[in-house]
Amino acid sequence: MDPDIVAKAFVEHYYNTFDASRANLVTLYQETSMMTFEGQKHQGPASIVAKLTGLPFQQCKHAISTVDCQPSGPAGGMIVFVSGMLQLAGEEHHLRFSQLFHLIPTPQGSFFVQNDIFRLNYG
Amino acid sequence: MDPDIVAKAFVEHYYNTFDASRANLVTLYQETSMMTFEGQKHQGPASIVAKLTGLPFQQCKHAISTVDCQPSGPAGGMIVFVSGMLQLAGEEHHLRFSQLFHLIPTPQGSFFVQNDIFRLNYG
Repeated sequence: MDPDIVAKAFVEHYYNTFDASRANLVTLYQETSMMTFEGQKHQGPASIVAKLTGLPFQQCKHAISTVDCQPSGPAGGMIVFVSGMLQLAGEEHHLRFSQLFHLIPTPQGSFFVQNDIFRLNYG
Repeated sequence: MDPDIVAKAFVEHYYNTFDASRANLVTLYQETSMMTFEGQKHQGPASIVAKLTGLPFQQCKHAISTVDCQPSGPAGGMIVFVSGMLQLAGEEHHLRFSQLFHLIPTPQGSFFVQNDIFRLNYG
């Protein structure tokens, strides 16, 4: 499998799920998973999804600008680096963001998110 | 060792070296190292440093805005996510950037850069 194709498919799935129903992202994380969201650290699916569903907006739409992907080492992991724009319902302006995912293969032939770091790009 | 302290020390060392003499970054990469610079992929210290020293500017100064760090797995690696500003000599405006480093421990107790992804943040 071409890692770039896998990375793009993951990114599409992630943001489509985020924009449709954030709570459904829970299946992408495991107990070891870490998320740093604007500097705040969370670990495990419950804590991560509580943070995401608690964000102070109802509807949003992500638009992806770039997706970069590299294998993270011999164990089959992948690092995926995304830049894009986030539009909130009722807001005219969009917010630029960068996000990193470190994907680890599961025995079922899929991936889970071991590392997730999100930052808004101000300025 | 606190990973956040290690990450901040690495970031400071990396950008100080970049701004003083980019060619000296060669010691931070190994043959398996990958860099994706604005979408262009390079592998190994020679190719990576050729790209960095060939960038079309002489002097620059990085200013760091945020550093986020997470362990990347059980093998002692660290993911470091940086946002900041890059000022080129003779240019009034600065450029915003995001950069990811995946650091892997060496037998000597130091780290090398396994993954490096750089993107300018336009907009």
